[in-house]
Amino acid sequence: MESRGQIVAVGLGPGERELLTPQAFAALCQAEVVIGYAGYFTWVEDIVKSKECVALALGQEMERARLALEHAGKGRRVAVISSGDAGIYAMAGVVLEALEALPEDDRPDFGIVPGISALNAAAALLGAPLGHDFAVISLSDLLTPWEAIEKRLAAAASADFVLVLFNAKSQSRDWQLKRACEIVHGHRSGTTPVGIVRNAFRPGLNVHLTTLADLPASQVDMFSIVFVGNSTSRFVGKHILTPRGYPAEPR
Amino acid sequence: MESRGQIVAVGLGPGERELLTPQAFAALCQAEVVIGYAGYFTWVEDIVKSKECVALALGQEMERARLALEHAGKGRRVAVISSGDAGIYAMAGVVLEALEALPEDDRPDFGIVPGISALNAAAALLGAPLGHDFAVISLSDLLTPWEAIEKRLAAAASADFVLVLFNAKSQSRDWQLKRACEIVHGHRSGTTPVGIVRNAFRPGLNVHLTTLADLPASQVDMFSIVFVGNSTSRFVGKHILTPRGYPAEPR
Repeated sequence: MESRGQIVAVGLGPGERELLTPQAFAALCQAEVVIGYAGYFTWVEDIVKSKECVALALGQEMERARLALEHAGKGRRVAVISSGDAGIYAMAGVVLEALEALPEDDRPDFGIVPGISALNAAAALLGAPLGHDFAVISLSDLLTPWEAIEKRLAAAASADFVLVLFNAKSQSRDWQLKRACEIVHGHRSGTTPVGIVRNAFRPGLNVHLTTLADLPASQVDMFSIVFVGNSTSRFVGKHILTPRGYPAEPR
Repeated sequence: MESRGQIVAVGLGPGERELLTPQAFAALCQAEVVIGYAGYFTWVEDIVKSKECVALALGQEMERARLALEHAGKGRRVAVISSGDAGIYAMAGVVLEALEALPEDDRPDFGIVPGISALNAAAALLGAPLGHDFAVISLSDLLTPWEAIEKRLAAAASADFVLVLFNAKSQSRDWQLKRACEIVHGHRSGTTPVGIVRNAFRPGLNVHLTTLADLPASQVDMFSIVFVGNSTSRFVGKHILTPRGYPAEPR
């Protein structure tokens, strides 16, 4: 077993050391090779400085997985790092896709270390927006047809899920958030609480509370995650509360 | 400010010390009073032994919040502990509801420390089931009408969300999971990969892979969380992979 190497997909959390789990710390310590997006290495420089570090650009996810397999194929212990949770819109799936292409007997051992995702981190800064059922949707139509995303937005909005929107906006994708708001607004009041968290637990942190009607004009960028409350969500001071259930009385 | 005390809702993660974040550790160290379900105190006994610990039974969530406000009202620093993430079906919302009943000027400071939820932990053990959009649904109809839950199941299944089912079964709620499977099966193939994780990162851990058609008969209990893949999810060895998007070719 040892001779065929191993790969661990490690979730680093938001970046702040306070939210890096001991399990992730240990996984990095045990690795011989660390592969990931260049920007993440600054978070763990002191832990990985004695290791072989392979820093790649954004967008090179498949290349990171390919290199992980190549190093593991030489019997080495490889950590593939992601921000947030390694399994939520992150590298665990990309590595699994690469492993799938190998005959089962040739695959290195593979494990995942979970992390505090943007979901967990931003929700904590907003209070309790996730006190009841929620749907997590990426607005990026790079790999998913926009029609499928619209269908998800409408379905989740109609069934009163709290919505968590990843990849709401970027320089090249600037109209999707406005369209998403229109769809959700078709099912939900304009006064629905909305929370926008930019750079959760990172330098440049900003928490902005607004409403569904005002959301499209609010400042959202590629470092932001957007929460839209359900029909019972409300503001409590500077927090958003989604209660655990629905009032027993007919409303 | 100090005189009116403070409350922090702290997510402990699954229980294993390796997944307790340094931020949660620090929050426990700084607290004077620690309040929570009795079972969770065994996980952090060494950290909180010198503090005033208030251990309550399951179901006494509102009483825990009431006591937190009472202690904070005396100017004390209170930690309210939850397993998993304090904000996902957990105590952050219950405390916020209690704070809402106070005049704004009388409210103690309130903060949330996120944690590795059952969602993050179980997904890591299954591989990458959450590689694409997902919906999180509690099957508990104690506070939510069953009709609303059915509507959410149908909406999420029809829009091809990966499903994460909390509270899938308990001694007193034994028919809901079977009904949920019927609803999802109306929209998704019986061969859809399903992962059941019992006691993620705890003693008694069990990971069981099955399919939607076989799920109803599989062993699920109140310590289990259930993942149902989307139309593209598949098994890779002993893991579940949900790819990041959809194939570009028409299918």
